[in-house]
Amino acid sequence: MDPLNPAVSLVLDRTLEGTLGIELIEVTEDRVVARLPVTDRVRQPYGAVHGGAILAMAEGLASMGTLRGIAYPAEVCFGQEINGSLLRTVFDGHVEATATILHRGRTTWVWDVRALDSEGRLVAVARCSIAVRPNRQHAPDPA
Amino acid sequence: MDPLNPAVSLVLDRTLEGTLGIELIEVTEDRVVARLPVTDRVRQPYGAVHGGAILAMAEGLASMGTLRGIAYPAEVCFGQEINGSLLRTVFDGHVEATATILHRGRTTWVWDVRALDSEGRLVAVARCSIAVRPNRQHAPDPA
Amino acid sequence: MDPLNPAVSLVLDRTLEGTLGIELIEVTEDRVVARLPVTDRVRQPYGAVHGGAILAMAEGLASMGTLRGIAYPAEVCFGQEINGSLLRTVFDGHVEATATILHRGRTTWVWDVRALDSEGRLVAVARCSIAVRPNRQHAPDPA
Amino acid sequence: MDPLNPAVSLVLDRTLEGTLGIELIEVTEDRVVARLPVTDRVRQPYGAVHGGAILAMAEGLASMGTLRGIAYPAEVCFGQEINGSLLRTVFDGHVEATATILHRGRTTWVWDVRALDSEGRLVAVARCSIAVRPNRQHAPDPA
Repeated sequence: MDPLNPAVSLVLDRTLEGTLGIELIEVTEDRVVARLPVTDRVRQPYGAVHGGAILAMAEGLASMGTLRGIAYPAEVCFGQEINGSLLRTVFDGHVEATATILHRGRTTWVWDVRALDSEGRLVAVARCSIAVRPNRQHAPDPA
Repeated sequence: MDPLNPAVSLVLDRTLEGTLGIELIEVTEDRVVARLPVTDRVRQPYGAVHGGAILAMAEGLASMGTLRGIAYPAEVCFGQEINGSLLRTVFDGHVEATATILHRGRTTWVWDVRALDSEGRLVAVARCSIAVRPNRQHAPDPA
Repeated sequence: MDPLNPAVSLVLDRTLEGTLGIELIEVTEDRVVARLPVTDRVRQPYGAVHGGAILAMAEGLASMGTLRGIAYPAEVCFGQEINGSLLRTVFDGHVEATATILHRGRTTWVWDVRALDSEGRLVAVARCSIAVRPNRQHAPDPA
Repeated sequence: MDPLNPAVSLVLDRTLEGTLGIELIEVTEDRVVARLPVTDRVRQPYGAVHGGAILAMAEGLASMGTLRGIAYPAEVCFGQEINGSLLRTVFDGHVEATATILHRGRTTWVWDVRALDSEGRLVAVARCSIAVRPNRQHAPDPA
């Protein structure tokens, strides 16, 4: 998956990331960066950015970074445990989140995610554990 | 806020809940129930429901239930800490989540959220802490 | 492991559970119950029960319940992700915690833990994910 | 509170920190560092350090740092939400944990905690939210 590749953007258009309007900036197995422009699509009823949109972005970044690093399709990954602290309300501009790898285990990758507003203030922190498992549907190539 | 009132649905149309297609079933200060139909809007790239969509629904339910119970507009509330375990992948049908109040404190309400798939299997559990604070922008009515 | 067996109590005496004075009441693969008497051993400097003591008890109960249910020694388990909300300060009496199984997966067991004070009031809630893995040091019995 | 002051060590002797054998290395309102020597007091039945001991240390460090920074006794603080990922089993040596302030809000301080083993490997990460509230039992000094 190459987020700078137009084909990938197309694919994201039919995902939650596309629905929320998330723009990928960088995807490596160490660090994933993305930006969420503040629009009515991601607000709660009182006009602020919905905390759930920030958590969803965090989970997506951690999953994309893990996917970039594992031996797909022999291995697959899925979000297992997510937690986040919402620290500051955002009304306008964008939220930029950076996921940084904390632990690359055999069965679990753990990411630290920090989200900043357009002024560079910390608005949320999250930790996401992504499970890595052998793909039981994957037949190895014939030798 | 009355989720069964068409005016509210209209309001939700311009929020994250509306964007994701979440349908409110019940909103009280003890229990909030909603349903997320599985569509491409809430999928991750491999076709399963994005864990972030379920977390976002959990956070929204806890916030709505708290809002229903506090003395708004003298008090306001906002999501503070959210955590969730994703237990089972969902590909089709819907996800139905029920938030149940665990603790109704002076400054924090804590909710337990459980999400089931269309077959009634547990697919995620979450806990959401919602902060309750005096509304500093609210001028009390003149005596 | 049989918590009602005196040999087990002896073993716990050389563990964190023994250090904190935790008394096991019930250990099954569905439910684990224990009690922590409030003593200076588990207080923070201002006289209340240290939140960390309650979290440690929660993690221990979830681990013991999982261990009871897996195919030990062919499988082993270890705590992977723990979170807890501290809801009420406890000064005296005891804290009784009940861990209830939420999800028994192939690689992860998830427990819900609720802790009550001597008056039966909810003082903390926690969720503990325990990883289950094949024991790589375990040689299967010869056929 | 001065952790380098012998009077403080005495006080900690009657707390959970004293019970576990935790040694404070640094306590400021930005950063708190402590060390947990591995002894039978903090082990689980299979000889590894009990994850609960590490979580308890994390919660204690975050609380001590917050206490150092608030206007005590006009304000008080207490642990509210703790979560931790246990990444690596420790059998010997010590665990050294560093709590670093992430967010210093009017009502909540949030700390990031990282724990390393004697070889400097990351063994756990935690996030602790400490509530700060006016001390309702505190009578202000007469003017």
